[in-house]
Amino acid sequence: MTSQPTTVPTPAAATAPPDYATPIPTRWVGPLRITGNAAAGEVHVPLATYETPLWPSVARGARLSRLIEDGIKVTLVDERMTRSVLLEAPDAETAYTAALAIHARTTELREVTRRSSRFAELLTVRHEITGPLLFVRFEFSTGDASGHNMATLAADHLLTHLLTHIPDISYGSISGNYCTDKKATAINGILGRGKNATAEIHIPQSLVTGRLRTTAAKIARLNVHKNLIGTLLAGGIRSANAHYANMLLALYLATGQDAANIVEGSQGVTYADDRDGDLYFSCTLPNLIVGTIGNGKTLPSVDDALTRLGCREDRPSGDNTRRLAAITAATVLCGELSLMAAQTNPGELMQAHTRIERSTGSPA
Amino acid sequence: MTSQPTTVPTPAAATAPPDYATPIPTRWVGPLRITGNAAAGEVHVPLATYETPLWPSVARGARLSRLIEDGIKVTLVDERMTRSVLLEAPDAETAYTAALAIHARTTELREVTRRSSRFAELLTVRHEITGPLLFVRFEFSTGDASGHNMATLAADHLLTHLLTHIPDISYGSISGNYCTDKKATAINGILGRGKNATAEIHIPQSLVTGRLRTTAAKIARLNVHKNLIGTLLAGGIRSANAHYANMLLALYLATGQDAANIVEGSQGVTYADDRDGDLYFSCTLPNLIVGTIGNGKTLPSVDDALTRLGCREDRPSGDNTRRLAAITAATVLCGELSLMAAQTNPGELMQAHTRIERSTGSPA
Amino acid sequence: MTSQPTTVPTPAAATAPPDYATPIPTRWVGPLRITGNAAAGEVHVPLATYETPLWPSVARGARLSRLIEDGIKVTLVDERMTRSVLLEAPDAETAYTAALAIHARTTELREVTRRSSRFAELLTVRHEITGPLLFVRFEFSTGDASGHNMATLAADHLLTHLLTHIPDISYGSISGNYCTDKKATAINGILGRGKNATAEIHIPQSLVTGRLRTTAAKIARLNVHKNLIGTLLAGGIRSANAHYANMLLALYLATGQDAANIVEGSQGVTYADDRDGDLYFSCTLPNLIVGTIGNGKTLPSVDDALTRLGCREDRPSGDNTRRLAAITAATVLCGELSLMAAQTNPGELMQAHTRIERSTGSPA
Amino acid sequence: MTSQPTTVPTPAAATAPPDYATPIPTRWVGPLRITGNAAAGEVHVPLATYETPLWPSVARGARLSRLIEDGIKVTLVDERMTRSVLLEAPDAETAYTAALAIHARTTELREVTRRSSRFAELLTVRHEITGPLLFVRFEFSTGDASGHNMATLAADHLLTHLLTHIPDISYGSISGNYCTDKKATAINGILGRGKNATAEIHIPQSLVTGRLRTTAAKIARLNVHKNLIGTLLAGGIRSANAHYANMLLALYLATGQDAANIVEGSQGVTYADDRDGDLYFSCTLPNLIVGTIGNGKTLPSVDDALTRLGCREDRPSGDNTRRLAAITAATVLCGELSLMAAQTNPGELMQAHTRIERSTGSPA
Repeated sequence: MTSQPTTVPTPAAATAPPDYATPIPTRWVGPLRITGNAAAGEVHVPLATYETPLWPSVARGARLSRLIEDGIKVTLVDERMTRSVLLEAPDAETAYTAALAIHARTTELREVTRRSSRFAELLTVRHEITGPLLFVRFEFSTGDASGHNMATLAADHLLTHLLTHIPDISYGSISGNYCTDKKATAINGILGRGKNATAEIHIPQSLVTGRLRTTAAKIARLNVHKNLIGTLLAGGIRSANAHYANMLLALYLATGQDAANIVEGSQGVTYADDRDGDLYFSCTLPNLIVGTIGNGKTLPSVDDALTRLGCREDRPSGDNTRRLAAITAATVLCGELSLMAAQTNPGELMQAHTRIERSTGSPA
Repeated sequence: MTSQPTTVPTPAAATAPPDYATPIPTRWVGPLRITGNAAAGEVHVPLATYETPLWPSVARGARLSRLIEDGIKVTLVDERMTRSVLLEAPDAETAYTAALAIHARTTELREVTRRSSRFAELLTVRHEITGPLLFVRFEFSTGDASGHNMATLAADHLLTHLLTHIPDISYGSISGNYCTDKKATAINGILGRGKNATAEIHIPQSLVTGRLRTTAAKIARLNVHKNLIGTLLAGGIRSANAHYANMLLALYLATGQDAANIVEGSQGVTYADDRDGDLYFSCTLPNLIVGTIGNGKTLPSVDDALTRLGCREDRPSGDNTRRLAAITAATVLCGELSLMAAQTNPGELMQAHTRIERSTGSPA
Repeated sequence: MTSQPTTVPTPAAATAPPDYATPIPTRWVGPLRITGNAAAGEVHVPLATYETPLWPSVARGARLSRLIEDGIKVTLVDERMTRSVLLEAPDAETAYTAALAIHARTTELREVTRRSSRFAELLTVRHEITGPLLFVRFEFSTGDASGHNMATLAADHLLTHLLTHIPDISYGSISGNYCTDKKATAINGILGRGKNATAEIHIPQSLVTGRLRTTAAKIARLNVHKNLIGTLLAGGIRSANAHYANMLLALYLATGQDAANIVEGSQGVTYADDRDGDLYFSCTLPNLIVGTIGNGKTLPSVDDALTRLGCREDRPSGDNTRRLAAITAATVLCGELSLMAAQTNPGELMQAHTRIERSTGSPA
Repeated sequence: MTSQPTTVPTPAAATAPPDYATPIPTRWVGPLRITGNAAAGEVHVPLATYETPLWPSVARGARLSRLIEDGIKVTLVDERMTRSVLLEAPDAETAYTAALAIHARTTELREVTRRSSRFAELLTVRHEITGPLLFVRFEFSTGDASGHNMATLAADHLLTHLLTHIPDISYGSISGNYCTDKKATAINGILGRGKNATAEIHIPQSLVTGRLRTTAAKIARLNVHKNLIGTLLAGGIRSANAHYANMLLALYLATGQDAANIVEGSQGVTYADDRDGDLYFSCTLPNLIVGTIGNGKTLPSVDDALTRLGCREDRPSGDNTRRLAAITAATVLCGELSLMAAQTNPGELMQAHTRIERSTGSPA
């Protein structure tokens, strides 16, 4: 079961091979120095992108990380993959009775989940009732897989089981959008989906000045004005950052991830604190979806990338993917820090762009 | 000026070439039949993705479009690219005075914009004041470019101009996140950013039954329960669809777009109506960011794809890109319709997945 | 402890009596017929409002409820009151260690809660980490009180306890806005705060036509277009209704509630279904905050209102307030149904307004 | 036309008088010192609330305002009242044609508006298309009225006019929830609805220490952690404050406003800046809906309150209401500042509450 959970094939077309491969320019940038509870050491990272100024941007953050003893510390605080099914009842009273019955069968549902896959484990069942509609959200651990498909397969078994055993409910949908996959919502951050990781760095004042050409106070202030207040005024939802999506896309493509998950991955919070001139800077990514096995992970370029990242080692189930999550969060921090520093200085961004333009002879 | 607007390079790294290219499996699917105010005719579309079940999913929608005289009609209703700058004042009173002064200089700002690029045209200036902060949002037309960089360059000139001519304000940021780029917010849909397009199709009852194996009533009901109510309960923001992000990502990668823009692109609304057994089905994408010139568009595979899509013709400025926007919206509709139809039938999704799994020998 | 949790008095002013009372025009409307798991029977409801057309609007729904055997069925599915505290750590790693330590002390925290009040019971502890910040959300049952103050008092004790026993964290705030009180957010609906109740009614076709002068299909369609899609496009968050805030405000004022809680109370979802010409109509209020004891409940007019509503009976702890929640949800349904029916007919709303204007001689 | 826009009466009930008045405890607090473009001088404010600790809380801010020469400066930056109608077309193409035709008739629509009321003036027409649905948002100036009813009446005339003159569209709803009234959304802040006002104060360090018992740094930090980040994590929408809803409710009730508008009124942004030890503190309320004429404003207690507030003077149309808006924003600042200061100090909030409890002999 490796296919993408939200599409439906027809048999004939399913077997068709690709016509060709679209080549995405890729550079290994780094190394980054990483510490924390999921990865440690120095590692280069592959960034596949058409937006090649991303490479020097991340590289600047990476160089900085090596000048600091702990480098970028990544703390992984949660992990789970989810799928919500939708059940219909004749009314809310019946939906509520069904919800109680479902929760009473949790042990049994764990067993059904195990039978669907040897890696999936049902962690929690949640529900929400709206009128006669009953949304049931299953949360799973999925080993080293990002787990979309494992969760969908398990949900399919669970749904069939519920429709067989719980009276007075009927099929609504295998996915009720209460999961939520590839949509920017609040629920994933609040209840958890994917890895929840914080990358953080403490930068002495001398490096803030010397390497980032700015001050801790300026970065902290810009973070409040731009990422927190600017995004708020734009009507953002659970998000405050400059450009997480750029780094996520590039690393996702290079490592065979389902890059459509940058939609929810892009929802994260940058925090900057002026600590007596030193800079504390962190990127929290509550909805970081990555895997090291499953769909796309056996393609040679992907396999090579994962191997070089140290995510093909013989480790306990889940640890290779936790390492990849840590590397991803650290990479996001490098690019975010670099851009935020640049934006504290009027004109720096455009001057850098103009330099690249000249050096590469790109047309205007 | 072809570089990505939200990253900062250093000179040395900027000139470095890619190490290699990450190959993304790509298939041309179709043809789709398209009508409307920006494109007409039948066209195959290239989908670059690791999630290959997307191909047959879109193909099913494409086949259906050819059985209907008008096919998929796409109506383009707006286009603009934006960048917001952030200015700081000592207090709100001063910020307000500055805002009035800025609006009074609109003609002059149009001229500054023209000097920054021969394609950029300043359409509108908007602002919002919060405490002493003044966010100014510039809206531009940008010809055939998606316009991120053109808008950033113009904003840089405009910002310098404002800082020179408007008293009592100081630099806050070249981007105040009120633009909004690659973040899911409400402002882009409400004020406009990128193309705003609706793709729609009228499917006779016989085809709904015969080709989609469902009914108009079932699809309309699922759309309300899953896309509208499910996303709402998940805490979504201006979004109600099943999986726009998947189709956008695949087409963006194949055509050299900045695929991080799927974040806001994924915010759109699916609408389904049971019209006496026939199905009206539409996908509205208010934040669709595409271009046919600019960064990444000269790579051979991208250039080939754009040529084959008919987006390299000798047309009035902007028309090639409008055509691409229409094709993109139609492609989104194909995949969305196919998945929604599948989800009306219990088990269909997993059965299809299992078929693919067997046929391709993929591991579980 | 009866005071409002989010204000701070100074001693001198605290003892000052009111200067006078602002009189809010109040009518008892009904009776409504109610069934369900928290209230049953027929009951008039008091509506205190300057917007007096609300009275006949609710009255129309109430009359309809009496023509149906089950009337309005209200199902209460959850109840809890929350307060979040904010703790600061030097970094995310320490915040995570602290979070684990806090969860390990849950039993002890339950005991601390009990010592703070004889009615408060700690149900659940949740947390979220962002950078070095640790938000801890306590969920309580609070008997017949709405529980703002009880939760604040308990949180104050819990916070002191945590600061004493958990190393390396410091005080951030007694309230971290992650609760969330009197702000429209997604968290309350997802995690629960106040009562979560659905009011629903099944109306035969003859009554839909005869009493509401519309059809089930028209109401269902309007609900999708206006409440679901219209609110979505406006950038709403977890909300889809026409005017819950109006009914909540009027009933809250008449029964001594803290009416600022209509902010989150107004976030609810109206659902309408055409069932072969009959109408299923429901209002789900996930964040309904009411109490029958505590601040303001001993004022004579409030005490009278609660007594007349049957919410001063000798019942198990919490049941009087559950009854009030059910009555409130049913009242919301009456007003919502009435307005939705009116808006299906062009001109009906304004004609009704003009009639009132003439009959009362109100100035333009 | 004084009635509430979102309810429908029946003739019999419409003439019924209130049964009685619910008395809300009210105190005049202050005076506040106010400057700015809509009000100047010192003024007491009436606060009607069951949550009486609000009085000393606002009083503390008021006392502070009198120790500063400029007091609280309020800058009013925008005003308008809105109503959106919903039109249905057979498809998006037709909806788009209709939208263009509507904009082409703007002059004519201005005339229709004038005929509906001598105070209403049509400022702008906006639209959004989703599938076959056309939402048209009318923005009006409404003199001294808050303008709900004036806008609804004008929209009713405009809607009839459009249905008569624009081909191929049909009635959807007199209100499409794209207005948006009494719902927390993003559109009101972005496009404007009600008054948009910022209240701000500069407090010297000595007063921050002496009167607020805190520091500018502590308040600025708490504002970032609690109001900005805490609300963000809770899934808030365009909102970052501690308790605007409390002050708005109390002042709205005392002055005869439609207090259900605190729902959107509560969406505002508190900003605090440490300026070398001095505190800059502001409250921005982008959706502040107030009026001095219209429904409820002729009740004796309301009329007295408005007179005493200086909002019954002989001024150009709109100025009395602008004054009321300024007073309201300043009152919000007083309560917000007071609470924020208290929450910087562990235990202060509960100690104050306990003092009140003892002094008033309130039961637990």
